[in-house]
Amino acid sequence: MTVYSLEASNGIAAQVARHLGDELVFLEKKTFPDGEVYVRVPSKPRGVAILVSSMYPSQEKRFLELLFSVEALSAYAEGSIIAVVPYLAFARQDKRFLEGEPISVKAVLKSLEALGLSGLVTVDLHQPRVLGEYLSVPSINVLPAEEIAGYFKGKVSNPLVLAPDMGALERAKSVAEHLGAEFDYLVKERDRVTGEVKIYPKSLEVAGKDVIIVDDIISTGGTMALAAKNVLGSGAKSVKAVCTHAVMVQGALDKLYYAGIEEVVATDTVPSPVSKVSVAPSVARGLKELLEQMV
Amino acid sequence: MTVYSLEASNGIAAQVARHLGDELVFLEKKTFPDGEVYVRVPSKPRGVAILVSSMYPSQEKRFLELLFSVEALSAYAEGSIIAVVPYLAFARQDKRFLEGEPISVKAVLKSLEALGLSGLVTVDLHQPRVLGEYLSVPSINVLPAEEIAGYFKGKVSNPLVLAPDMGALERAKSVAEHLGAEFDYLVKERDRVTGEVKIYPKSLEVAGKDVIIVDDIISTGGTMALAAKNVLGSGAKSVKAVCTHAVMVQGALDKLYYAGIEEVVATDTVPSPVSKVSVAPSVARGLKELLEQMV
Repeated sequence: MTVYSLEASNGIAAQVARHLGDELVFLEKKTFPDGEVYVRVPSKPRGVAILVSSMYPSQEKRFLELLFSVEALSAYAEGSIIAVVPYLAFARQDKRFLEGEPISVKAVLKSLEALGLSGLVTVDLHQPRVLGEYLSVPSINVLPAEEIAGYFKGKVSNPLVLAPDMGALERAKSVAEHLGAEFDYLVKERDRVTGEVKIYPKSLEVAGKDVIIVDDIISTGGTMALAAKNVLGSGAKSVKAVCTHAVMVQGALDKLYYAGIEEVVATDTVPSPVSKVSVAPSVARGLKELLEQMV
Repeated sequence: MTVYSLEASNGIAAQVARHLGDELVFLEKKTFPDGEVYVRVPSKPRGVAILVSSMYPSQEKRFLELLFSVEALSAYAEGSIIAVVPYLAFARQDKRFLEGEPISVKAVLKSLEALGLSGLVTVDLHQPRVLGEYLSVPSINVLPAEEIAGYFKGKVSNPLVLAPDMGALERAKSVAEHLGAEFDYLVKERDRVTGEVKIYPKSLEVAGKDVIIVDDIISTGGTMALAAKNVLGSGAKSVKAVCTHAVMVQGALDKLYYAGIEEVVATDTVPSPVSKVSVAPSVARGLKELLEQMV
């Protein structure tokens, strides 16, 4: 196999290549004077080609770098072409919330497949079901729960892992189990008289706890900041915020620290000042599993 | 039919809708806080949907707006979805000039088709053959030669239309015929002793002529400026530079005027300070022709 690193690999390509004992090749990239992206695969893959690139801003450019790379590889056409996309952008526009809306993630996945993609590994997708729905080639969504839990081992004395909402519970549960901690999800309630919004865990108490709130993406940080304020207001000893994808726009990090969050922890799927955990081990495991499925 | 205008229609959508007597609907567009593009088709098409958007910088964002719009329209799925793309970006990366390169325009066309495109009208493509090679749905490439010639009628007394190279001759010929002028193409010759490059028409004389140099794209303006300098040096009375797609980067317009070009004329496929000619009549004709093919 040959692992190809695009500019947005974030070091994950090299770690994966070392895990698997494969060669690493850097894709050439430039921008034409008119602004168009250009990539080139400088050498033929030995067997399966593994293309590693995340899709953080500018998401559109990253997507086209990936699409053009798949197209370029398809001309070599001897083995499979597997994309490793640690952060798959456009993944939150995963259904028609309003009539006339696109399913953007469907457009992204179907385009990659139309150009010759044979498999996909991605990390902590907003709705993992989209892989089965919009790709007909094999794919795997990996959750870096073990790596995230590993980061906190020995650092928190009385942990309670919370999901910001019910939909995010599986992720929190998985981190909690690796950490040997309890877990719950937060519910929102608006006071009928005062209109005030209260946020609290569905069934557990936060008082005296070192709370770890775990979400897939922190974008503007609004949800996480509000949750933290409420949990601290209910007597939590400390709050740490954790996400897989630190998209962090509109002053998100300042918003989080200002809300009283003690520490923010993210993975390296998106470059950020808090990318303390690498998804590379999870990705390498997912890739091995995918390759076994494809044999 | 319903004509949909995306932000990058440049007024062409409305002109086409008026030509055809069809309704015009504006697509909703926004950018999410994290920078991702979003579009929405606010109402169902009546029969065939015509989606009008050019692909000038940022080309990647324009491409995804178009791709997502096609995906959104495909859910309505009653009639055909035709894209009118006056400037199709990535069209110059139309073959593997080097091994390992992508054919970017193939990736763009195949993605649109994979998401449900049923037909394409584009204007003055760098290599029209790519439509037949990479699309299996009907398509038309229109040349706005009549509109360009119309702009110059009565404005030049002794015209000679030149193509900057042999590959661009058909375009210059077509403009010249509409203008009732002679035409030729420029050849480049390097002096074996001095190394000096001379550029001159293959068979005609430029002395005393009002030269009109016609190309598909002016990007950095380098080719056009060099051609103009040489033609003026050979005694041309004046030089005008004409292109369909005024991409104009890196100070192109200043480069052109500084080279002695009297006037620069472009169409409205890309917004520019010299977009004096509209491709809308050509596009409307192309669209009618395409619709007849599709019946």
